[in-house]
Amino acid sequence: MNQFGQRFSFCTFGESHGIAIGCVVDGVPAGLTIDEEFIQSELNRRKPGKSEFETARKEDDKVEILSGIFNNISTGTPIAMIIYNTNQKSKDYSNIKDIFRPSHADFTYYSKYGIRDYRGGGRSSARETAARVAAGAIAKLMLKELHVEIFSGICEINGIKSRTLDYNYAKQSVIYALDKNMEESQKKAILNAKNNHDSVGGIARVIIKGVPIGLGEPIYYKIDALLADAMMGINAVKAVEIGDGIHSVNIFGSQNNDEITSNGFKTNHAGGILGGITNGEDIVINTYFKPTPSIFQPQHTIDKDNQDIDFSLKGRHDPCVAIRGSIVCEAMAALVVADMLLLNMGRELSDLKKYY
Amino acid sequence: MNQFGQRFSFCTFGESHGIAIGCVVDGVPAGLTIDEEFIQSELNRRKPGKSEFETARKEDDKVEILSGIFNNISTGTPIAMIIYNTNQKSKDYSNIKDIFRPSHADFTYYSKYGIRDYRGGGRSSARETAARVAAGAIAKLMLKELHVEIFSGICEINGIKSRTLDYNYAKQSVIYALDKNMEESQKKAILNAKNNHDSVGGIARVIIKGVPIGLGEPIYYKIDALLADAMMGINAVKAVEIGDGIHSVNIFGSQNNDEITSNGFKTNHAGGILGGITNGEDIVINTYFKPTPSIFQPQHTIDKDNQDIDFSLKGRHDPCVAIRGSIVCEAMAALVVADMLLLNMGRELSDLKKYY
Amino acid sequence: MNQFGQRFSFCTFGESHGIAIGCVVDGVPAGLTIDEEFIQSELNRRKPGKSEFETARKEDDKVEILSGIFNNISTGTPIAMIIYNTNQKSKDYSNIKDIFRPSHADFTYYSKYGIRDYRGGGRSSARETAARVAAGAIAKLMLKELHVEIFSGICEINGIKSRTLDYNYAKQSVIYALDKNMEESQKKAILNAKNNHDSVGGIARVIIKGVPIGLGEPIYYKIDALLADAMMGINAVKAVEIGDGIHSVNIFGSQNNDEITSNGFKTNHAGGILGGITNGEDIVINTYFKPTPSIFQPQHTIDKDNQDIDFSLKGRHDPCVAIRGSIVCEAMAALVVADMLLLNMGRELSDLKKYY
Amino acid sequence: MNQFGQRFSFCTFGESHGIAIGCVVDGVPAGLTIDEEFIQSELNRRKPGKSEFETARKEDDKVEILSGIFNNISTGTPIAMIIYNTNQKSKDYSNIKDIFRPSHADFTYYSKYGIRDYRGGGRSSARETAARVAAGAIAKLMLKELHVEIFSGICEINGIKSRTLDYNYAKQSVIYALDKNMEESQKKAILNAKNNHDSVGGIARVIIKGVPIGLGEPIYYKIDALLADAMMGINAVKAVEIGDGIHSVNIFGSQNNDEITSNGFKTNHAGGILGGITNGEDIVINTYFKPTPSIFQPQHTIDKDNQDIDFSLKGRHDPCVAIRGSIVCEAMAALVVADMLLLNMGRELSDLKKYY
Repeated sequence: MNQFGQRFSFCTFGESHGIAIGCVVDGVPAGLTIDEEFIQSELNRRKPGKSEFETARKEDDKVEILSGIFNNISTGTPIAMIIYNTNQKSKDYSNIKDIFRPSHADFTYYSKYGIRDYRGGGRSSARETAARVAAGAIAKLMLKELHVEIFSGICEINGIKSRTLDYNYAKQSVIYALDKNMEESQKKAILNAKNNHDSVGGIARVIIKGVPIGLGEPIYYKIDALLADAMMGINAVKAVEIGDGIHSVNIFGSQNNDEITSNGFKTNHAGGILGGITNGEDIVINTYFKPTPSIFQPQHTIDKDNQDIDFSLKGRHDPCVAIRGSIVCEAMAALVVADMLLLNMGRELSDLKKYY
Repeated sequence: MNQFGQRFSFCTFGESHGIAIGCVVDGVPAGLTIDEEFIQSELNRRKPGKSEFETARKEDDKVEILSGIFNNISTGTPIAMIIYNTNQKSKDYSNIKDIFRPSHADFTYYSKYGIRDYRGGGRSSARETAARVAAGAIAKLMLKELHVEIFSGICEINGIKSRTLDYNYAKQSVIYALDKNMEESQKKAILNAKNNHDSVGGIARVIIKGVPIGLGEPIYYKIDALLADAMMGINAVKAVEIGDGIHSVNIFGSQNNDEITSNGFKTNHAGGILGGITNGEDIVINTYFKPTPSIFQPQHTIDKDNQDIDFSLKGRHDPCVAIRGSIVCEAMAALVVADMLLLNMGRELSDLKKYY
Repeated sequence: MNQFGQRFSFCTFGESHGIAIGCVVDGVPAGLTIDEEFIQSELNRRKPGKSEFETARKEDDKVEILSGIFNNISTGTPIAMIIYNTNQKSKDYSNIKDIFRPSHADFTYYSKYGIRDYRGGGRSSARETAARVAAGAIAKLMLKELHVEIFSGICEINGIKSRTLDYNYAKQSVIYALDKNMEESQKKAILNAKNNHDSVGGIARVIIKGVPIGLGEPIYYKIDALLADAMMGINAVKAVEIGDGIHSVNIFGSQNNDEITSNGFKTNHAGGILGGITNGEDIVINTYFKPTPSIFQPQHTIDKDNQDIDFSLKGRHDPCVAIRGSIVCEAMAALVVADMLLLNMGRELSDLKKYY
Repeated sequence: MNQFGQRFSFCTFGESHGIAIGCVVDGVPAGLTIDEEFIQSELNRRKPGKSEFETARKEDDKVEILSGIFNNISTGTPIAMIIYNTNQKSKDYSNIKDIFRPSHADFTYYSKYGIRDYRGGGRSSARETAARVAAGAIAKLMLKELHVEIFSGICEINGIKSRTLDYNYAKQSVIYALDKNMEESQKKAILNAKNNHDSVGGIARVIIKGVPIGLGEPIYYKIDALLADAMMGINAVKAVEIGDGIHSVNIFGSQNNDEITSNGFKTNHAGGILGGITNGEDIVINTYFKPTPSIFQPQHTIDKDNQDIDFSLKGRHDPCVAIRGSIVCEAMAALVVADMLLLNMGRELSDLKKYY
């Protein structure tokens, strides 16, 4: 199952070291101007090799649109996009051909499918998320027309928390830091780990502004449930939180409730969602990324024949996947909201009467 | 969208104060013995009014099976179950008929649908989750035949954490506490809040044992993503965590990685899932419930005409929804695993060759 | 898979001789007045025992709505409906308990599921179609508000063709005949077969008027493809035709093309659909029902142990299933159009801009 | 909605005169040898320009596989295939830029989407079916491993019926004729129409051999219903028939019933399907193609501004789309059966017990 979404949906294909990766985006309304430069700029934000805080692997991630537009306008037909793999060093992986890297998907993919594309993790590689970012860029173009905007940034790395949340600053920070004052400490934590041949985890925060009231399909396609699905499905993610989620466990209902006034909600502990439906406040999502499993310290594992092995991983890897992961969170958030915008049409008979 | 699952799927219907709630479970393999007493016993674990830690509302939650079985054996056709509502005091809600209770779904449902079944929250009421528990019981019967077992319990209430995780003890505890030694403090926290006309949050922990290796459908129906979807969709849930999820953000990759030996995994930080596919270790899920929004302290809100109002809620409500919620988490976990077991069939050509 | 439709969808449950059959209709827009008498009147049109041209089995088919409405108005939540089985004579089936009736689903269900609810065919019985008619009635109520109307009638029985198509006459005819002048011959053909302990086939014609231009989702949810799916899935149906379908094979393109003028289409050979999308003309569907497989002449078959057997069927059966089947065709057509009306919303960006 | 199938599914993308068309096939079991030459040979059977009975347009239809295989073996991940468009003469369409060709999808696409890719029909062009044939070839490779085979041929053109059904002969016939003796008359009918600047219709027959008993998911994913959906969704198809479908309307139940013996079914009027589930006999499907709407006689129509226009179409078109269409029918049949094979796994609890 390589498809996500119902009305604004997409599927992805491709492996880390195959010919190409790509996606097919379906349900895009006709009449949307498709700004290819914007799509490329989104891919550029995710692409590796931009700084010492990321893998040294360089991929151009040049996107080509194959279908679905005519004279730069969406026609309502599927938009297929393709990104050729150009910087594959499959040889880097020949030494791990038969062994299962700890906390990677090597063991589970091989167990499930009985076959393994060991080159860079094959389909289980985070490289696949480039295709999500391309699809998400189309969603963002649609959201922009409806005045919905999405921001993201890193609010915590290796336990070092941001105290302020400056989404504009995050855009220019090489680690997408939300707090200028904590950025240096966070950077140090990453480099520290890197120098120790180790890795660190982090939290990516996404905020969605301008969302219309009423998005989300109860009971089993609630917008918070779908956001949780979308984020948890990103490589290395182990927890998802909406609004003040985790903190709310420690406080009383009287503290957590968001009172309403004729001028709007007094607070937004709920993170913009009540009963699985948007209430017009900002949607707030925190996504927890574990430390990169690819570390360069000696580790113990087994091979395909269940033989014990000590090994040391080589290659080029991100010391902190949360950073580039935050761009994927943004993309998935955009795709969820785009889907919900379409699904929400026709909720009332009066809407249908106006439409037809 | 009131359906969940692909191959082992279910839909639910019904409102808090309507005639009945119920579910239709589809995809149940033929030949499964349907133990009605077990289904009822599962509903009894969720039903309200069993102690002072729950709402005083008493509902029998007597389940009736309408279809899908013949001589107590599943026939492969949909199993419809119905639970008549018997203890509705709709009058309790006449005073909130036109106002939106803070942090409830009143505002969002009304905004979305332009109509409101104000009696007990209507469809947005947690009463709907009884239907999930009935569906989940069918899933559990199937899992039992395949030696998969699910346990749950409360591991934190209002910031008071369990230090041990005794799932057998939880079964007999009225608050499903996992730690006998912390139970009293946790109970006190609940009663304290209750006496203050307030409410508290909590964390429900679910553990799934005996899961075959290989469950989960990459990339967009990963088992962790679907579990996150399932849990986040439960009323009052604001965060979902797999394995050591949140904690892993603070440690290094070298600490978080689960090394593998010829005798199995050394540790289970991953919570039984790698790359969205089960690795044979226990699946561990923590679900974070916010404090019940229904509190009896005076609150400020608006009515349908956007007029400011101060009001005090009346009625009968759980001071801590995490407790009964944990049973719903179990049910949803069972439904996810049942679906994944069916979806996983046919992953290899050799399986098909044996089957046909 | 007991669900049909994407946005306006329904599932059904129940067996011929179980406790009840029913359906859950999802995606009904909020604000629709639900006229229960209309739903019952639709069920009455399908119910058996109304004349000598139908089975003598009498079923009340009394429908009860369990959810989804408040003060007779749809709330946007699932509408569950239930019809209790009251006139089951399961004993009628004890003599066929272990044998497979020719051209029934007995053999295939038993082969597939390894279990058999032999009472009246269980789930494979056409009794299940009553639930479709109930769901279809909800769809019709919605269509009515949008000025879409559906008519049906029998245009051929046992080779005897109608020459005129009078849908108003069909409504009052006991065999739903479209041609008053051919009705007697068609009736005679049915009674003739009945007297010979035999059965006849027939063609039900459905016409949908007032359909907006633009319904249908290319390429794999075209409205003609979905109508074909809907009709072919009805018990005893073996062919489906849109517009002049079969006849068009014998003529030239120059004869079959529908020229367009500024006042509309000159002809409607296409049956209202071009490229899988409605063109505003009447949608025309012919559905071909085979002769009822339940005949009372001696037949040869096998039992569960693959032993050859000669047997004669007993019980009460329709001599021509096309008649009551035509009401099911109407219902399915309504459900398809309702789904397409919702799916079509959001096809253009400008629609979204107006909506939000 | 550009996706078809549930477990073995595919989506297609691309327009007639865009950069490329293609498909993504999902759910292919791991371990299948992917014979690229076979895929290409299937495409060659469908590609135009092979004889005077087809359009003179020449397209290479060279397929490239982008993902999903490793060392020529399927890995269980999505298989993306791409076919670049090389022989587009978009200028051929400049004269119809603003007019709606009768009985084409021009009018409906423009009405629905408000935009029109007029070059060769854009997405509504039958060129898209090349992508289906590529996907179908993957399905066929899987079916072959399970000893399921699919054959097709033309059994009627412009009213000239085949009397024999020789599927081997059809393979070598340039018009895929099933009856060697009728081939010449059928060819003449086509050339006759062509010389008159006209077109003819035809019937493609597909037969599926070796299908296991038990395929098909009642009640709303019956295999006959899905086949009807699959065939009706092919360009220019207006009717679908299973087994003796249309003929059965004229005969009695006693003639149409297929008696069963301990050695199998005596007859196969049912076309291999009972109650929507396969009975082990050959599946037989007739698909009715209307005459090609593209004719070169003067026609009347309107333009975008609803102005009346007389015009004559130019370009290169098939005088009888049923011929190349039959290859698409085969592909769709293969895709339906592949899906059903996977869906059928897990129908009995005992299957699951063996599997896990």
